[in-house]
Amino acid sequence: MEKTIRIFSPATVANVACGFDILGLALENPGDEVIIKRKASSGITIFNETPYKKIPLNPDANTIGVAANALLRKLGETEGFEITITHKIKPGSGIGSSAASAVAGVFGINQLLPNPLPKEDLVEFAMLGEKVACGSAHADNVAPALLGGFVLVRSYDPLDVIRLSFPESLFIAIIHPQIELKTEDARKVLRTNIQLKDAVKQWGNIAGLVAGLAKNDYQLIARSLEDVIIEPVRSLLIPGYENVKQAAIQQGALGCSISGSGPSVFALCESQEIAERAASSMQKEFSKLEIDTVKYISRINTEGVKITD
Amino acid sequence: MEKTIRIFSPATVANVACGFDILGLALENPGDEVIIKRKASSGITIFNETPYKKIPLNPDANTIGVAANALLRKLGETEGFEITITHKIKPGSGIGSSAASAVAGVFGINQLLPNPLPKEDLVEFAMLGEKVACGSAHADNVAPALLGGFVLVRSYDPLDVIRLSFPESLFIAIIHPQIELKTEDARKVLRTNIQLKDAVKQWGNIAGLVAGLAKNDYQLIARSLEDVIIEPVRSLLIPGYENVKQAAIQQGALGCSISGSGPSVFALCESQEIAERAASSMQKEFSKLEIDTVKYISRINTEGVKITD
Repeated sequence: MEKTIRIFSPATVANVACGFDILGLALENPGDEVIIKRKASSGITIFNETPYKKIPLNPDANTIGVAANALLRKLGETEGFEITITHKIKPGSGIGSSAASAVAGVFGINQLLPNPLPKEDLVEFAMLGEKVACGSAHADNVAPALLGGFVLVRSYDPLDVIRLSFPESLFIAIIHPQIELKTEDARKVLRTNIQLKDAVKQWGNIAGLVAGLAKNDYQLIARSLEDVIIEPVRSLLIPGYENVKQAAIQQGALGCSISGSGPSVFALCESQEIAERAASSMQKEFSKLEIDTVKYISRINTEGVKITD
Repeated sequence: MEKTIRIFSPATVANVACGFDILGLALENPGDEVIIKRKASSGITIFNETPYKKIPLNPDANTIGVAANALLRKLGETEGFEITITHKIKPGSGIGSSAASAVAGVFGINQLLPNPLPKEDLVEFAMLGEKVACGSAHADNVAPALLGGFVLVRSYDPLDVIRLSFPESLFIAIIHPQIELKTEDARKVLRTNIQLKDAVKQWGNIAGLVAGLAKNDYQLIARSLEDVIIEPVRSLLIPGYENVKQAAIQQGALGCSISGSGPSVFALCESQEIAERAASSMQKEFSKLEIDTVKYISRINTEGVKITD
C-alpha cells in the first residue's frame, strides 16, 4: 500500500445568498494542498510550509489535527501520520480555508487506512476540525469540500447532507478584498430572532434556488439569489459592498452575495465570460476605496477533495 | 362562442409542512363546481345552490364576485355574468374552499372573454377574492388550484409562482375533523418573530423537500416534511393532533401535518394503499375523542381548475 499521498482540498462558498448555514458549493481553485505520510510511531505530526506562520502545529489546536484525531479515535486506529501543509487558502478569506484543511486531513488519512470510510461519513469529523478554527461546527463548507458540487445540509441533528443537481455551465467569480473580518465577529452581528415575514421570503428564495438549479432555469436562479436576513447585516462590515454587488449584476451575474461570513464576495454566473467581466467590475469598485483584492474564477468543482498523485 | 360553461375547481393543501405561505398542492377531489353564463346586462349575479347558506350573494362581499370583478375591471370588460355555485367544498375546512371559489369564478369568466389571459396571470385576481373570505391575500391555495400540481410561491412582491417537479405516484389523505377553527384565529396564534436557529431548520427542510420532489427521493421527502415553526403552535388548536400524526406515520405516510390553517390534517403518501391505511388510522384517533371526520383520498391534481363540459 502506498505510504505517501498528496491531497488537493477545494475552497468553498457557504450560504450562497439565501442558504444561510445550509448551502455550499465547491470551487476548482484555490485549494489547500497537503502531503500525508505514514510514520512509524502513533500520533499526528504537522509541518507547515506555507507563508501563514500563525497556523498552530500542535495537533490538538490545529484544524487538521483535531479532525484527523477524531477519525482515528472513532475507528480505533493507532497508526501515526505526518501531515505537511504545502499550500494554503489564505485564512480568514471567507472561502472555507479551515474547512479545506480539515477535509484534506480527514480524507487523506482515511485513504491510508485499511478500511476507508465513504466520503459522506467523513463530514462529521471534518466539522470538528473546523470548530477549532472558527468556534462553531458548521457543515456548509466541509460538506461541499468533501463531496464537490452544490451541497445542501438539510439537517444538523441528525446530520443530513444532500447533493443537489445544478447546471454544469455555472461559473463563480470570487473577489477577496484584503480586509480583516473574523468569523466570530461576522456571527456576532447576527440577531438571534428574526421576523416571520422575512423568514417566509428567505424560504421562498431557497426553495426557488433549489428548483432553479434542478431545472437549469437561470432566470429562476437569478430571482432566488436574494438574502433578506443575513446579508443586510453582514454587508455593513464590507466597505463598498452595495456598489460591488450592483457592479456584478450589471455585468450579467445571476446573483452576488457574501461568501460564507466574508469578506470575500462571490458572483454566480452563467458562463466564464460573464464571470470574468463581473470580477473585473467588482475589483474596480473595491479599488475606488483603495482596497486591494485577489480574484478567483472557477467552475463548480464536481469532485471535491482528491488525491493528486 | 359557447355561452354557458361548467367549471371544476379543486381543493388544495397549503403550507405542506415546512412551506408556510409559499407551498401548495392541488387535489383531484373534492372541489367547487360552478356554472357560468353570459347575461345581457353587465355585472355579476351569484346564485347559491349549495347547502352553505352563509355564502354572501352580494358580489362585493363574495369571493367569486370580488375576484371576477377585479379581472373584468383590469381588462376593461363590461360584460355581465350569472354564476351559480352548484357544489362547494365545506367552508372553514382548511383545504382551500375560498381559493377554489375565487379560482372557479376568475377562470370561468376568463374563458368566456374574447381574449382570455393565460392561467398564470389569473393568480393575482383570485388572491383578491380569497382576501375577502379570509382577511389576507395568499397565493399558496389559489396558485395550485389554478395551475394544478405542487406550486411554489417564491415571492409575493413581485408575484412569482413556480411549478415544481414531483413524483407522479404521490397520494394525499385528508382528514377533516368536524370542529370549527377560523383562519383568522389560526393566524392570530402565530408569533411575528421567530428564532433564527428554527428558521435555519425550516429552510433546510423546504430545500430538502424541493430537492426530494425533483429527484423522486421518497426518503428525502419524508425527512423534509417537518415544520418546526407553525405546526407546534397551530396543532394545539386541533384536539388529538399528535396521536393523529403518529398514526399516519406508523402506517407508512411520508409525512403528516396541518392542511393550510387547519383543522384538516393531511398525510402525503407513496401510494393509494398507504394513503387509505393512513386515513383510517387517523380517523380512529379522532373518533377516540368523539370527533366526527370526513375523509378524502386523492392523487395530486396535475391540471388544476378546468371546464367539465
